[in-house]
Amino acid sequence: MTTDFTQTRAQFDLPDGLIYLDGNSLGPLPRAAAQRVDRTIREEWGKMLITGWNKAGWMDLPTRIGDRIARLIGAQPGHVVLGDTLSIKVYQALASAVDMAPTRRVILSDTGNFPSDLYMAEGLCRTLGNGYELRTVAPEDVADAIDDTVAVLLLTEVDYRTGRRHDLPALTEKAHAHGALAVWDLAHSAGATDVKVAEGGADFAVGCTYKYLNSGPGGPAFIYVAPRHAATTRPALSGWLGHEAPFAFDLDYRPGAGIERMRVGTPPVLQLAALDAALDIWDTVDIADLRARSLELTDAFIAGVEARCPSLTLATPREHAQRGSQVSFRHPEGYAIMQALVARGVIGDFRAPDVIRFGFTPLFIGLDEVEGAVATLAEIMATDAWDRPEYKTRAKVT
Amino acid sequence: MTTDFTQTRAQFDLPDGLIYLDGNSLGPLPRAAAQRVDRTIREEWGKMLITGWNKAGWMDLPTRIGDRIARLIGAQPGHVVLGDTLSIKVYQALASAVDMAPTRRVILSDTGNFPSDLYMAEGLCRTLGNGYELRTVAPEDVADAIDDTVAVLLLTEVDYRTGRRHDLPALTEKAHAHGALAVWDLAHSAGATDVKVAEGGADFAVGCTYKYLNSGPGGPAFIYVAPRHAATTRPALSGWLGHEAPFAFDLDYRPGAGIERMRVGTPPVLQLAALDAALDIWDTVDIADLRARSLELTDAFIAGVEARCPSLTLATPREHAQRGSQVSFRHPEGYAIMQALVARGVIGDFRAPDVIRFGFTPLFIGLDEVEGAVATLAEIMATDAWDRPEYKTRAKVT
Repeated sequence: MTTDFTQTRAQFDLPDGLIYLDGNSLGPLPRAAAQRVDRTIREEWGKMLITGWNKAGWMDLPTRIGDRIARLIGAQPGHVVLGDTLSIKVYQALASAVDMAPTRRVILSDTGNFPSDLYMAEGLCRTLGNGYELRTVAPEDVADAIDDTVAVLLLTEVDYRTGRRHDLPALTEKAHAHGALAVWDLAHSAGATDVKVAEGGADFAVGCTYKYLNSGPGGPAFIYVAPRHAATTRPALSGWLGHEAPFAFDLDYRPGAGIERMRVGTPPVLQLAALDAALDIWDTVDIADLRARSLELTDAFIAGVEARCPSLTLATPREHAQRGSQVSFRHPEGYAIMQALVARGVIGDFRAPDVIRFGFTPLFIGLDEVEGAVATLAEIMATDAWDRPEYKTRAKVT
Repeated sequence: MTTDFTQTRAQFDLPDGLIYLDGNSLGPLPRAAAQRVDRTIREEWGKMLITGWNKAGWMDLPTRIGDRIARLIGAQPGHVVLGDTLSIKVYQALASAVDMAPTRRVILSDTGNFPSDLYMAEGLCRTLGNGYELRTVAPEDVADAIDDTVAVLLLTEVDYRTGRRHDLPALTEKAHAHGALAVWDLAHSAGATDVKVAEGGADFAVGCTYKYLNSGPGGPAFIYVAPRHAATTRPALSGWLGHEAPFAFDLDYRPGAGIERMRVGTPPVLQLAALDAALDIWDTVDIADLRARSLELTDAFIAGVEARCPSLTLATPREHAQRGSQVSFRHPEGYAIMQALVARGVIGDFRAPDVIRFGFTPLFIGLDEVEGAVATLAEIMATDAWDRPEYKTRAKVT
């Protein structure tokens, strides 16, 4: 292992005493981010004003940062671009993909997919009309459900609830064998696992940056288009910055070169500045090391909790190949248990109806934190410390 | 006049000696913005981490800030929400609008509309299939082109090139009389003129915040939905944060209450923090005063330039009712003239093929700046100072 995770840990600003296992929901603050954004605001926006688009390189941020993310997901530079939210990017990728299988009407997904992906697919089907439908099956039934009616397979590689990881190359291959395209959502795998979009053959991939990539609340999404499609795919969200010549102000849309055509509107420069600072930390990280470290951490957490908390049921696959970088357990009182954990400084997430989930980000989580989290959870379960009214009152947002 | 524009001017951080007439492209830095974003990063993201969504009120920012913008465009609170880019919001509004005129197939717009609006409409028509088409006519022919085939009228109130202002209430009324809906893009009117979306009867309106509202590069867009449609319109971009209960993680989409349904993905919190700080300046501004002051400034600029630069042709209507808050002139050497102006600290914009445009934002521009800009432009024209090779070399982005 060549990556020094002590050194990556030192680049985050984490509150003392907190064990933050929620980097799969919102990554923590990279030390360099505040200063980078401040410089962008005062030195660029404040002093360059409109000329910042050229002089400060704002206009190129979406592709320049796309190149940095490409390495993390197993893509070559030039095939990833930043912009919009993940939901918009799902719509954009799906619309391009269905357009490439014009005789078919089925988008196939699974019930473990993040709901917004399903909602966006539903919205697209409704807009397309003409008999388009979203078909969902259980995650374990996806492979069998791929047939010659499927236009596009839409899957999230790592399940947001269980941490179950789909076999991206195998399912993509099966989709292709049946004449379908594959769109992959990498929300819980970019920066968390050894994603291989190019080697795995994905047609399109999308992901978000505010989880394992630590870009901050509302950081922009990214989209990958396979090189074989980049010059031919027709964007449904045909915005001016995806035009071949945005500043010619032509009346007709002509898609830009390659991945540029997946740009839509004006990029969120402040959020991109924070992301750019966050990606500096990744420069020293080898993705194979990341994956090895992630499995070591999740193995240790599973072993510790199973040994000491018999009433919790593991929801995450034991098999490494089927696991992302989070561990989830089920318990009917999951909500209250998570509240008790949070009150003791161990931050995870609850996902309805009964899942408590813990994200393990090797960049800032080590075996000490795993041990601390196991000990706190064991104490809560052994003493029924979760069984208090204040832990059972549900907040609007969790 | 109750608004003190000296006081609003003091709240911007503008470089010394610069006459910035490009606030219609990118507004300047409000003094409070850098600190506000820094606090959001260090005190909220850094310390609250995931709990910032509740504790710091991030989740409510899109509607809370929407209420602040509502006043500026003549809407009631509760009918505007922030998110995405303007191009995405155009698509979203259009998709909802065509859905409400299901027997018709024409989106009518004009050739003076900002190209991205036309591109997005084109993309939507292509996605809808079934004979949907975008029809464009010259701006002055719009009223006559509204007939019973039109599903949706899509117009930008103030032309980005000429500064010509459409009659929003009259065109909306005519659209309604023919059974069509009206979608208005307020990119160049929100914060620039006395927009009246509710009184004018607009069905949907969209706009951006980084021009006259000064939210900074890539600040989010907004969308207004008329109260009569808010509870019934069906979003095509049906993202999880527009769901009735986003954190129930249901598999099926159910639109949220009212304007909430126009939310899509996770909001860009850092950009919203900058916008929120920028809107503080607007708290003391009366919109009728803004409009009066804007007309005073543009009148003075037109009179000054016409008196001293006979070779420039006014492209902006003289009639107040037809004018936004910018003034444009045509000249075959417009590009070089603008470069010469910029070199002398007068910042405007060039828009192909031959338009030089100047935005007048009463919040930070006064009669002194008008006079200074006229004098500089007159000097350039009188001495042919624009006629130098370095002013004629075109940069990629202007």
